[in-house]
Amino acid sequence: MNITMEIAISKTNKYASRESGDTAEIVERPGGGMSVILADGQGSGRAAKSLSMQVTAKVAALLKEGVRDGAAARAANDFLYAARHGQVSATLDILSVDLKTNTVAITRNGDTACIIETPSGIRTYREAERRLGLHGRTRPWTAEEPIVPGLRVLLVSDGIVNAGLRTHLKPWDLEELAAFVSPDRDANALADGILDEAVRRDSGRPGDDMSVVALILREPQPAPLLIRRMSAEVPIS
Amino acid sequence: MNITMEIAISKTNKYASRESGDTAEIVERPGGGMSVILADGQGSGRAAKSLSMQVTAKVAALLKEGVRDGAAARAANDFLYAARHGQVSATLDILSVDLKTNTVAITRNGDTACIIETPSGIRTYREAERRLGLHGRTRPWTAEEPIVPGLRVLLVSDGIVNAGLRTHLKPWDLEELAAFVSPDRDANALADGILDEAVRRDSGRPGDDMSVVALILREPQPAPLLIRRMSAEVPIS
Repeated sequence: MNITMEIAISKTNKYASRESGDTAEIVERPGGGMSVILADGQGSGRAAKSLSMQVTAKVAALLKEGVRDGAAARAANDFLYAARHGQVSATLDILSVDLKTNTVAITRNGDTACIIETPSGIRTYREAERRLGLHGRTRPWTAEEPIVPGLRVLLVSDGIVNAGLRTHLKPWDLEELAAFVSPDRDANALADGILDEAVRRDSGRPGDDMSVVALILREPQPAPLLIRRMSAEVPIS
Repeated sequence: MNITMEIAISKTNKYASRESGDTAEIVERPGGGMSVILADGQGSGRAAKSLSMQVTAKVAALLKEGVRDGAAARAANDFLYAARHGQVSATLDILSVDLKTNTVAITRNGDTACIIETPSGIRTYREAERRLGLHGRTRPWTAEEPIVPGLRVLLVSDGIVNAGLRTHLKPWDLEELAAFVSPDRDANALADGILDEAVRRDSGRPGDDMSVVALILREPQPAPLLIRRMSAEVPIS
């Protein structure tokens, strides 16, 4: 079975805030496949950013050694709890396309919402397990889906779901958000489209950091060669 | 000064070969900025892939701890030399946009060619320092350029520069290759354009693995918000 996986991450900061506290990373898995790691550190500014980078670095290093996602999330919790004595927390999401198990695995700690579209329908999840770093025995929320064309997964941060609250819109219904997932959009267009709409709901001034991760598995365009692509576009100021 | 950095990596495998021996990774730097890490393991198949993943993982972990690029390359050499007793080699390229030093730094071991376009002209480099893993005191080739809009850097693997040799074209002149760098192309279009042309020179059947890394620093489009994007598109079969 030939499948193309598309992963896209689009992020913006809270309005007028220079630094966001979250870090996203895409890594290759040693058994084949890719993982997206998304962490958001407690607080704001440089300390939060440094914290989220430590968490993603720890998880990336473990995944690259072949450690399972759930074990990596537990390890990140224990590492943070031991180093910071339960005083500091972070959220963590791991979204993996795992060619060893032939599944898409989602592993979540914190308040990122999750939308999973499979051939049998759409499921949405607002709650996950508690944040990392506060307790000794924190474990992750997990879900696993077989790799099939048409599978789509979205992870959206608090700032996306709550967009519009300040302007007295009602919170973004996840089903409504899932309606953005149209089959002909690629992952980049999907992530950008959701981010744009969230910014619009906040009247152009995001009330919070906003992150969207989109994963799409699709049947590839017929092409003579398999091309792999990675890219990043980052404003620096 | 507002600048947008665009990083794009496009790769394809040697014709009819399922697995390439190279690994590319994009990581955030703790002091601000991003780095691309590209490694190619000696040999082919799973062993070469595993080797290149070990090298990029080692370098990524060090960069995320704030280690300088040159020191990370030396460490990767020493690690490989110690673990594999000088029997196995890998190439390594690190391309960094470093906001702490306000420079773009290029660090190379191996046979990847390099094209640097600055406001004062284009420079091309075919040779770098020797590959990692074979000797105890290997050091990297390095170059450093100030961060300015208009800076463009290309890294292209052996398979790109030698495309067409089998069909008796002359090797691709780096100046000619640099002519692909037109100011209005974004990094994705640039990397894809060079890969396409290399594949065409090999009559649609790449004689070797092919990788292109493109970095462009540009003045951003006027936009109300700073959006960060990362993406990956990977065929799985």
